[in-house]
Amino acid sequence: MTFHTFSETQLRNFTEAVFLKMECPAQDAQLAADVLLRSDLRGIDSHGVARLSGYVRLWEKERINATPDIRVVHETATTATVDGDAGLGLVVAPFAMKIAIEKARTYGSGWVAVKNSNHFGIAGYHALMAVAEDMVGISMTNASPLVAPTYANERLLGTNPMCYAFPAGKYPPLVVDMATAAAANGKLEIAQRSGASIPEGWAQDASGNSSTDPHQLKQGGSLLPLGSDKEHGSHKGYGLSATVDILSAVLSGANYGPWVPPFVAFLEPSKNPVGEGLGHFFGAMRVDGFRPADEFKEHMDNWISRFKNAKTIDPEKQVIIPGEPETLFEAERKINGIPLIDVVVNDLNELALKLGISGLGI
Amino acid sequence: MTFHTFSETQLRNFTEAVFLKMECPAQDAQLAADVLLRSDLRGIDSHGVARLSGYVRLWEKERINATPDIRVVHETATTATVDGDAGLGLVVAPFAMKIAIEKARTYGSGWVAVKNSNHFGIAGYHALMAVAEDMVGISMTNASPLVAPTYANERLLGTNPMCYAFPAGKYPPLVVDMATAAAANGKLEIAQRSGASIPEGWAQDASGNSSTDPHQLKQGGSLLPLGSDKEHGSHKGYGLSATVDILSAVLSGANYGPWVPPFVAFLEPSKNPVGEGLGHFFGAMRVDGFRPADEFKEHMDNWISRFKNAKTIDPEKQVIIPGEPETLFEAERKINGIPLIDVVVNDLNELALKLGISGLGI
Repeated sequence: MTFHTFSETQLRNFTEAVFLKMECPAQDAQLAADVLLRSDLRGIDSHGVARLSGYVRLWEKERINATPDIRVVHETATTATVDGDAGLGLVVAPFAMKIAIEKARTYGSGWVAVKNSNHFGIAGYHALMAVAEDMVGISMTNASPLVAPTYANERLLGTNPMCYAFPAGKYPPLVVDMATAAAANGKLEIAQRSGASIPEGWAQDASGNSSTDPHQLKQGGSLLPLGSDKEHGSHKGYGLSATVDILSAVLSGANYGPWVPPFVAFLEPSKNPVGEGLGHFFGAMRVDGFRPADEFKEHMDNWISRFKNAKTIDPEKQVIIPGEPETLFEAERKINGIPLIDVVVNDLNELALKLGISGLGI
Repeated sequence: MTFHTFSETQLRNFTEAVFLKMECPAQDAQLAADVLLRSDLRGIDSHGVARLSGYVRLWEKERINATPDIRVVHETATTATVDGDAGLGLVVAPFAMKIAIEKARTYGSGWVAVKNSNHFGIAGYHALMAVAEDMVGISMTNASPLVAPTYANERLLGTNPMCYAFPAGKYPPLVVDMATAAAANGKLEIAQRSGASIPEGWAQDASGNSSTDPHQLKQGGSLLPLGSDKEHGSHKGYGLSATVDILSAVLSGANYGPWVPPFVAFLEPSKNPVGEGLGHFFGAMRVDGFRPADEFKEHMDNWISRFKNAKTIDPEKQVIIPGEPETLFEAERKINGIPLIDVVVNDLNELALKLGISGLGI
């Protein structure tokens, strides 16, 4: 595997140019690029520019609407449902999160369910919008069905991530941003490329047997929920994934469970949908709705400091604060650039050629 | 192990009598008994009357206040912090959940953090209060430190449960009520009593090695987060547990992490507390704040029906809907009574003798 490193600015300009070619309005192109770049900066390589050509293919199939009329279709003082009008999730999600934040500013909290959307990038981006306003930020989304619930031999749920983000004082925000599957699909893709086997407990084959072959997922197998098997609590991972699915889609009127439209353009969405597009769910709560924000942050710092300095099994390994590795990546990559593997670089250069824009120069 | 079966009414009367002897006001005694009985009815034997003498011991040590002045100490339209005044969590929690529900009735959603409380029984009881009002119910609590975060060789977190409950139409509510550890402490206690070993991935010994000996937890070992090890996502279980801890305690002003007062009366709480008592967090969101409630319930029924009828690995095993086993237990035990193991029966009879009330007659 060869890496090429690009500056944030170069990748940002490239990504914006692609979205502009998709006929997104300038402001949307800029926002969508910002969401993808944030993922690459934070070291979540699977959800950044590596997915750019996937969005373009969905647009070509007319499954993404580049000029959506995103609007609130149902509302109370602190709750709302947003219709994304089949827009880019990268644009629909920040629209919805802003409404949650505005409601929280006035009433203490705000909650927005979204239907008729598409893949929204990293959950952390949206939750962190609330943290910037001294609020707790919550974001989640359902996703292409890849995961089999406990005992099932069918893919009924996505890797459905949930994210909770909290402001701190001297430390960076604490961000729990996690797929509710034992392992994200990206990890299987890495193993597929390198020919490595995967640990027991990540996936099962078409017969429902635990498998260490990363290719089984493409041959009728399924990913497993967090917990891996019943004995180790896979019913809990399944329960969390169900929670994300219900809040994101049953509450909003999006498709849920096996009806969620797949991200890959070569798979057709269900001909008998139970809702519109896929769904997200966002929340914002003012910290000072519960206690003064400076008091909260002081105790967050104490929490973080205590956990960072915990006694560890291996003296070389510290307890990791959720979100800390991503913060370190972000600081480092802003200076030293973003490394992309050659597969991704080639894919982006082909995309540039197809769209008639400048490639990445490699 | 011998079981004795008691009617709901007999155990309810007994439990109320105990709380009255603790000098709880009649209404509180009735409510606290209802929370414990609901746990036994729902088959969650570890959180019902089996814990009754534990509450009494905490009261004897003056760590539980039987006549608390439970009050709101901080508030916005949709958020509040409640000071439980060291009352029974079984009483403090419903008080707080009622406030969340009232706020949701007026503003669409309501969120209440609680400090200065004690063990609140099963999370599901409180979340289901919201479901009865056609709301999504959320409840969580931190708990005695027993769990080591990924890489740690210290107990820094409780088994910190989170619960999400959703109303359905023809089906009973869907209730995800789960500890964020790989296995609850109750499962280890069962293995301790029967002399059985436990699966790898539930606990580690005092040196931080994975252990199948259920007694290691009492010899300096720790429970492990959901996911069991890093490779299988234990950092996610740790992140969820951290989320519960922060929402319940850093937000409310309760003790968090290793400072949470232990449930067992023979362990003293920290001499340098970082807050008051332990903490809970509750939420309620009106379903019709997002879409009409009958539409939501119709789709919940469709979700449940699709998952119940999923293709399974073993044709004898159905996919289980979260909360379904508890609903079945509740229906059955309301008719046939609640079985208690002899250890619990003896414990309750000794308690009766000490308090000067009638025992269970066995």
